[in-house]
Order: sequence, then structure tokens, then C-alpha cells
Amino acid sequence: MDEYKVTPWEVSGEIDYDKLIKQFGTSRLDRALREKLIRLSGGDEPHHMLRRDFFFSHRDLGPVLDDYEKGKGFFLYTGRGPSKAMHIGHLVPLIFTKWLQDRFKCNLYIEITDDEKFLHRRDYEWSDIQKNADDNILDIAAVGFDPERTFIFKDSEYVRNVYPLLLKTARKITGSTAKAVFGFDDSTNIGMQFYPAYQVIPTFFEKKRCLIPAAIDQDPYWRIQRDIAEGLGYYKTSAIHCKFLPPLQGISGKMSSSAGAETAILLTDDEKTVKNKINKYAFSGGQATLEEHRKLGGNTDIDVPFQWLSILFEPDDSKLKTIHDDYRAGKMLTGEMKGILIERINAFLKGHRERRKIAERDVDKYMKTGKLAASMWERVYE
Amino acid sequence: MDEYKVTPWEVSGEIDYDKLIKQFGTSRLDRALREKLIRLSGGDEPHHMLRRDFFFSHRDLGPVLDDYEKGKGFFLYTGRGPSKAMHIGHLVPLIFTKWLQDRFKCNLYIEITDDEKFLHRRDYEWSDIQKNADDNILDIAAVGFDPERTFIFKDSEYVRNVYPLLLKTARKITGSTAKAVFGFDDSTNIGMQFYPAYQVIPTFFEKKRCLIPAAIDQDPYWRIQRDIAEGLGYYKTSAIHCKFLPPLQGISGKMSSSAGAETAILLTDDEKTVKNKINKYAFSGGQATLEEHRKLGGNTDIDVPFQWLSILFEPDDSKLKTIHDDYRAGKMLTGEMKGILIERINAFLKGHRERRKIAERDVDKYMKTGKLAASMWERVYE
Repeated sequence: MDEYKVTPWEVSGEIDYDKLIKQFGTSRLDRALREKLIRLSGGDEPHHMLRRDFFFSHRDLGPVLDDYEKGKGFFLYTGRGPSKAMHIGHLVPLIFTKWLQDRFKCNLYIEITDDEKFLHRRDYEWSDIQKNADDNILDIAAVGFDPERTFIFKDSEYVRNVYPLLLKTARKITGSTAKAVFGFDDSTNIGMQFYPAYQVIPTFFEKKRCLIPAAIDQDPYWRIQRDIAEGLGYYKTSAIHCKFLPPLQGISGKMSSSAGAETAILLTDDEKTVKNKINKYAFSGGQATLEEHRKLGGNTDIDVPFQWLSILFEPDDSKLKTIHDDYRAGKMLTGEMKGILIERINAFLKGHRERRKIAERDVDKYMKTGKLAASMWERVYE
Repeated sequence: MDEYKVTPWEVSGEIDYDKLIKQFGTSRLDRALREKLIRLSGGDEPHHMLRRDFFFSHRDLGPVLDDYEKGKGFFLYTGRGPSKAMHIGHLVPLIFTKWLQDRFKCNLYIEITDDEKFLHRRDYEWSDIQKNADDNILDIAAVGFDPERTFIFKDSEYVRNVYPLLLKTARKITGSTAKAVFGFDDSTNIGMQFYPAYQVIPTFFEKKRCLIPAAIDQDPYWRIQRDIAEGLGYYKTSAIHCKFLPPLQGISGKMSSSAGAETAILLTDDEKTVKNKINKYAFSGGQATLEEHRKLGGNTDIDVPFQWLSILFEPDDSKLKTIHDDYRAGKMLTGEMKGILIERINAFLKGHRERRKIAERDVDKYMKTGKLAASMWERVYE
């Protein structure tokens, strides 16, 4: 019996990532492969999400790196189901994706799955989904991808350009496959049953290998892709999987903006809100009393503020180590730990708001006029 | 046990149309409704397909005629799954549709279901489907619809304009509904499972009642439409159903170009081919010997040449009656009956070839530039 659940629509429980690798049939990102990735990326300053095992699993990363070494190159693909408000957890794989693009100078496709969200959430109107999508796109663009090498598209807008390939893909996937992989049943609507074909499509955008940096809950789509890609004349996609940013209340599950404001820091939260949320809701690994804490020290493994610093907000290893050691030794108190995090989050969000302003100006490049985007609107995939 | 089968993908056996009305839950096109349709169409020269009970069944034709009478109007919708070669059977509902458009001056939408054909026929390449679709569209345009009031579109090309509405529709249809209505199972590909939503969409093109003139095998799609339309804020569609043009070899099943050249007269058949096919393959209701025929007379009920004259090639009732009576009395021989049919078919095909030339010039109006077509490309259905 599993005490956790990981599907594209639900992540809950305390996740055993080693077990998940076995369950999903992916491979652990081992030292040799990680070092090769770091070497090819330029050698210096490997991203802290790599160093700290946050990206922990993969499929066929080796052949991607081989192709890069041979000069053939590869491309990146990730995506987002538009939601009312993006939180910092949503940015995690995107930040790492930007690092990959910067280092490997490759094209990046970002699919905005407005269709899937609409099909899955029967309580949403189409206009809500569109409003959210347009808003989310600005937050994504604010990550700062290369505007000439990045194409951000909404499924609903690009569908004409991919429809023949979408049909070709759908023709290869039976209802029973979709049921087995995604847990659909006969009560699932026919739009949802069809949708997996669309999420597969961007892996076919170039006749190179595709590398998908994403949280591991999306992996079922890539399993289907890998079953059918070669029969359609494309490569099996590669993927590099990250863990989930834990929600404020504790290290189980993943951050989710629909689960209530107290689980997540939204990209729109102001300084005071951030401070209140962290102080009020962030699960602490500290002891019950000051005395006990000074004596026993805090538990960084379950301390959400420490985990967030590790995953996202403290890239400097030596600084993180100091925080870790001081907290473990009881020298640093919970309030101090939270104080550091609050400061970091607010600095990050300030930067994000500024980058989002620039993104408002640049978003057309990503979607229509940039070099890659313009070329994408000229083609139809058959 | 049924000795015949009628689904959107297969028609076989000797069809009991009265039984089919009960099975499908449609209504017989009775005298009162037929006379109302004829009266509103202008009163004179009711189409022979109406007079002769070839259009025999309907759903909610009454409210369509009421709306027309009240000045609200209605619109027409029909379609075609592109095939390698169109035969005269394919034109039957289109010819009646043109009559309706001429008489009621209404908009007509013709959906070319290139997606469905590709999903259903795994042996076809996309390029084959497109070649066939473009070719079929010329044959359809040759029927002579009003170029300012007709929109002919390929599903693959118009998908961007209907995608939000398509999702809204798909969200209302469960896998079990699609299975129950179309006989899908888990081995059916996910594209086919999704497709019924698209065939429903054109019934929502206007906020008026839609009337679909089509052979009765397409009715399952309208059953689904009628279940969900009002929940989406549209009218339940109306339909007027015709029987099938029997194939050359006998009055069972329907004409099908994929069943072999000897079952159908193709629109591309030349005069000699038509003559040979009719003389060689057309099932005759005549007697085995000349003597017996003179004595007993022929059976017009099973005589395919007579049936074709009745359905398509002899609109004049008194002339048809003479043929009927002479054949029944043994005065007219099988060879003479076939001779009349050959002459009529060849005259029809000569006209069709000429109209197809004009259609080559006009096809852009139906698809892009005509008044209705141009307005359709400007809108997105949400």
C-alpha cells in the first residue's frame, strides 16, 4: 500500500522518491551523468538544483548529452496548465530550464495547456482560463528566457498548426492505454481522453532529441510518447525530473494554489503577506520551547523554511551549510530561519515584479515575433 | 436478431426503414409535415425525393418550419468524409440540400471530416486524405450551392476557430456515452473517441435551429447533440433523413466506392464505363427469359435501374409511372430499362463535369471569400 500518490492531477502524501523511480521506471540521475551535464554546461557553477539532488531522476539524458557533444544539439520543452495564481513552486522547473537554455543555447518550447485545464476543471469558464493563461504567460516570460529561441504557445491558438500531427499521434493511442497510464475510466470526458496526444506533440517539434525538465508527476505523458515516437519517425523523448517544492504546512505533497492560500506563496503576494504567511504557516523543524531548541537543535529535514532555502532561495552552498549547522546546533532559532526566508522571498518577488514588467513588453517575441516563434507560426506539422 | 446493420461506418443487409425509425427513435416524415414543408418551400414542384418518400424520417422538423414561418429562419448543415472517389450516391443528400437552400434561402455549412477519415482509416497517409478532400470539395461545389450563403470547410483547417467550443462540447460527453452510441471500445483510438464532438459543432454555428439533411446512418451523432445542446445554450438539432441509394448489385446495403468498382458509378466514370457497369452489374428485376418477362413482367421493387431512376434520375412522376407500368406489364425489357438509365446517368455526369469546371473557379468563395465564408473565418466559437 502506497501512503503517497503522484499523478499529473494529484500529488499527496510523503513521497518516497527512490520508490517513485522504480514505480515510474525512470533512472536515477547518478554522479557520472550529473558530472557530464555539468561539464558540458561549461563546468563552472553547476546549478544548485543539480548539486543538491533536487533534479534527481531522468529518462535518456545520456543520449541528449551525446548529441550535444557531437554537435547535433537538442531542444527543451516544458509547459504549464494555467491557474488562477502562480506560486513560487511553479517557477522551480522553469528557473532550471532557463539555466539549461543559457548554457546549451538551445530552443525551448513552452506549452500552455489551456485545453487540458478547461477539460479537467468543469467549474471554469473558457474566459477564466484565457485570463489566467495570459496572466501566467507573463510570469513565465519573467523568468527571462531567450526571446529569439523560445516559443510560448497556448494549445487553443496553435492547434491549427499541429492538428494533422495530433491526429497521427492520437491514432496510435488506444483508449485502454490512456486508461492504464492516466487512470481514466468510462466516466472521463472524451476531451480528457484525447488530450494526452497534444501534450506529446511538442516532443516532435524538431528532428532532434527533446529534453523535458519538469516535476516527475508529468512523467506518464512521456511514457506514452516513448511508446509511439519511433513508429512515427521521431526520437523517444528524454526527461529530467525534479522533486516537488513542499507546501508551507509540511513536507508532504506539493505546493498547490488551489489548496488554499496558506499552502503557497503566490507571485502576487506583497511583503507583508509573505511575512505573515511564513511566520504563521511555515512548518518548522524547531523544538517546542526555546530551551529545548537551544539544547536539541532543529530538524532541517522537516523544516519547510530550510527546504525552501535549499531548493530555491540560497544558491550559495557555504551559506546554506552555515544555516544548516547553526540550526541543527540550536544556535539559530526558528524565528531567525523564517526571517532569512522572508527576506529572500521578498527580494525574489521584487525582482520578479520588475522582470514581469519587462515581460509585458517582450511577450510578443515569445509568442509571435521572435525568431523561433515567427518560424513556428509559418509551419504546419503533418 | 437484425439481418441488417446501420452505423456511421457500416451499412449492410436489407434495411427495414420502419424498424430503423423505431430503433433510432426518430419520427416518420408524415403527410402533414411533408405538406407543410412543401407549402413553405413555395408550393410548386416539391422535390421528387420528398414526393417519393426517399426522405422518410426526421427529428424536430416541425419546430424548424415553425421558426421559418415566424421569420426567425434556420440553417442547414451537412458534411462528407473525404474518399478517394465520389460516386453518385454521395450526391443524393447534397442535391436535396441544394433544393432546400434554393427554396428557403438559408445558410449552409458543409463539414469535410478529414480528421475522422484519417483516424478511422489507419492505412491512409495524411497527404492522401488531403488530396481526396480537395478533390471531393470540387464535386460538392459542383452541386451548385449559393456561394454567398455556403461555407465548406475542412475540419483540420477550421479547428482553430472552433477549438474552445469543441472542448466545451467534449467536456459534456463521457467515454461511456461515446461507447454506447457508437460502439467504441477500449481498443478504439483516442482520436476517434474525441471526434464525435467535432461533428456536433456545426449545429452550434448559429443561434437558430439547425436542419441536417443526411442519410440516416449519421443519426447517432445527432442523438448526442440533442442530449447536450440545451445545456450549452443551443437548440437541439433537427434532422431530415434519407434512405440509401442501393448499390448496383442489389437493393441491400448502400453504394460504397471502397467495396469495389462494380457497386458504384463514380463521378469520374466515362460514358463507356457507365454503359458497361450498368449492363454488366446492375441487378435486374426482370425475368430469366424474354418469354417469361413478356408474360410475367419485371419487378420494379428490386430492379436497381428502376430504383435509381426513382431516387435520382427521373424527377417527372408521369414518365416514371410509364416506365414502372411498362416494366411491370412486361412491355419494357431489362435492356431498355438499363438503356434509359445509362442515358440519364451520362447526361447527368456530363453536366456534373461542366459544373465541376465552374466549381474550380468558385471554390474559393465557398471556402474563403464568399459572404458567409469570409465571416466564418473572422470568428472564433467559444
